[in-house]
Amino acid sequence: MRCFVTGCAGFIGSNLVDRLLALGHDVSGYDNLSTGQLSFIEEARSSSRFVFTKGDLLDVDRLTAAMRGSEIVFHLAANADVRFGTQHPTKDLHQNTIATVNVLEAMRELGVARIAFSSTGSVYGEAPIFPTPENSPIPVQTSLYGASKMAAESFIEAYCEGFSMQAFVFRFVSILGERYTHGHVFDFYKQLKAHPEELYVLGNGKQRKSYLYVQDCIDAILMCIENCQARVSIFNLGLDEYCEVNDSIGWICEELGVRPELRYAGGDRGWVGDNPFIFLDCSAVRALGWRPKLSIQQGVRRTVRYLQQNSELLEIR
Amino acid sequence: MRCFVTGCAGFIGSNLVDRLLALGHDVSGYDNLSTGQLSFIEEARSSSRFVFTKGDLLDVDRLTAAMRGSEIVFHLAANADVRFGTQHPTKDLHQNTIATVNVLEAMRELGVARIAFSSTGSVYGEAPIFPTPENSPIPVQTSLYGASKMAAESFIEAYCEGFSMQAFVFRFVSILGERYTHGHVFDFYKQLKAHPEELYVLGNGKQRKSYLYVQDCIDAILMCIENCQARVSIFNLGLDEYCEVNDSIGWICEELGVRPELRYAGGDRGWVGDNPFIFLDCSAVRALGWRPKLSIQQGVRRTVRYLQQNSELLEIR
Repeated sequence: MRCFVTGCAGFIGSNLVDRLLALGHDVSGYDNLSTGQLSFIEEARSSSRFVFTKGDLLDVDRLTAAMRGSEIVFHLAANADVRFGTQHPTKDLHQNTIATVNVLEAMRELGVARIAFSSTGSVYGEAPIFPTPENSPIPVQTSLYGASKMAAESFIEAYCEGFSMQAFVFRFVSILGERYTHGHVFDFYKQLKAHPEELYVLGNGKQRKSYLYVQDCIDAILMCIENCQARVSIFNLGLDEYCEVNDSIGWICEELGVRPELRYAGGDRGWVGDNPFIFLDCSAVRALGWRPKLSIQQGVRRTVRYLQQNSELLEIR
Repeated sequence: MRCFVTGCAGFIGSNLVDRLLALGHDVSGYDNLSTGQLSFIEEARSSSRFVFTKGDLLDVDRLTAAMRGSEIVFHLAANADVRFGTQHPTKDLHQNTIATVNVLEAMRELGVARIAFSSTGSVYGEAPIFPTPENSPIPVQTSLYGASKMAAESFIEAYCEGFSMQAFVFRFVSILGERYTHGHVFDFYKQLKAHPEELYVLGNGKQRKSYLYVQDCIDAILMCIENCQARVSIFNLGLDEYCEVNDSIGWICEELGVRPELRYAGGDRGWVGDNPFIFLDCSAVRALGWRPKLSIQQGVRRTVRYLQQNSELLEIR
């Protein structure tokens, strides 16, 4: 397969690039390096089957030129910061929604017919059903991030109908693992590295979340692409378990051998638009035979160890 | 109330402007006159309580200046052509989604807290439930128009959560009545006016649709705004009945006294992304006490008579 990966130097994107190359595919990667790291694709760049283009998804001409010749697009580039949406209200619109339509326009122009898209469990807003299935009632969006991804999903589906494309839409829980550079484990690790004696926690620590290990996530994506023929396939990707933020804090502190005093901001949400409970029904992807290899606890611990071995990443943000 | 109406010179917008003025409100209208008609707001412009600004929603500065001082926004401006979406793929993104975020940004900038939004039953794609309730399963979009409106709804909801706004989202069936300037009655009337002996019909004529009279639509909007306190209220607006396109053709021909030969394009859809069955569950808005005054048949017949009396409108498109 000749694959095009947006966000190829990012956390999930770079892991996917390595996997696709290992499987023998040709890969063109596209990244504006706003949060992606060249170091993450250092090994990939030594392969003759990998081509990297530094470019922005808002630059349609550059995007189209880079995509030429591809058979499938893995569209992973996004503004993935759910938390700071209200500080820059149109960032999600541009980087997630408009950027996605630009990807679709480039595909249409070039006749590229297949797209895999990283959506999010955040599209469910505050779901009325747990675990939350893919065919939940139409949600009311509570974050600009969720809204921008719901919007992107919608346009992808309309392009599939209008221009005979095929889409694989994946609604992720939070993803953890090697090259993880943002999210709660990152934030807590960074704080504890600087001040091991205390930890500031958004909300009351009782928010319930689910986390999936990045290699398990990539296994699922590739399995779905191989096995699903529908015009539009939508899959939740997560674990059949959740933890409290407090559980995760316990594992992180154990890994680091620290016992900080916990200072809670209070309230049942970490920020405006935070979802106090994320737990997705992943029976559809499991029905394809997919099984995750790491539990939430294993994923969190592995991520902490990765950050310890790569502490230069703490300087990224 | 100091009201701001986008699309104020359009079909629904101009009727709403007249109603708001009749109720004693102050109205600022905004329209780029791309499809809106100055003649529709001729009477409104004679009122000292009406101010018109010609402007585009993609011009945020002009939009913000025009909105200043308003208490509520009625956001009706849109690209309402479902049918030709695939001929100009990014038009819906710009005129429906980005335009809506611009409205929200102007509101945020000015501290305007309430918005009523004209969404569409098209957001349900090909619904799995009839009549289709507001809390249907998350749909798969089948038109760029539906996608762009779903996207707009999503951003409106996120702004409500993030910036403490209040929204009233109305998912319309097709609207008919005075100043109606596009849609099947318009198309059929125009054809029959030119060639009364034959009528070309998209699809097989068996598509089932629902149509609501514009004054009934406005009654519902105003009733919801007056009675709903929730941060986000979402209502289907339609009738508890549907008709076949063939029924509608019959009424139109009766009104015109013509008996054309019907030529069907065939297939169960009028165009790519057409929805062969639209029938919304409107029990939520009925629970507020709203009752439509015209049936589908009455609405269609009244619209034909209006077009007969205003045949200069046939030249619009």
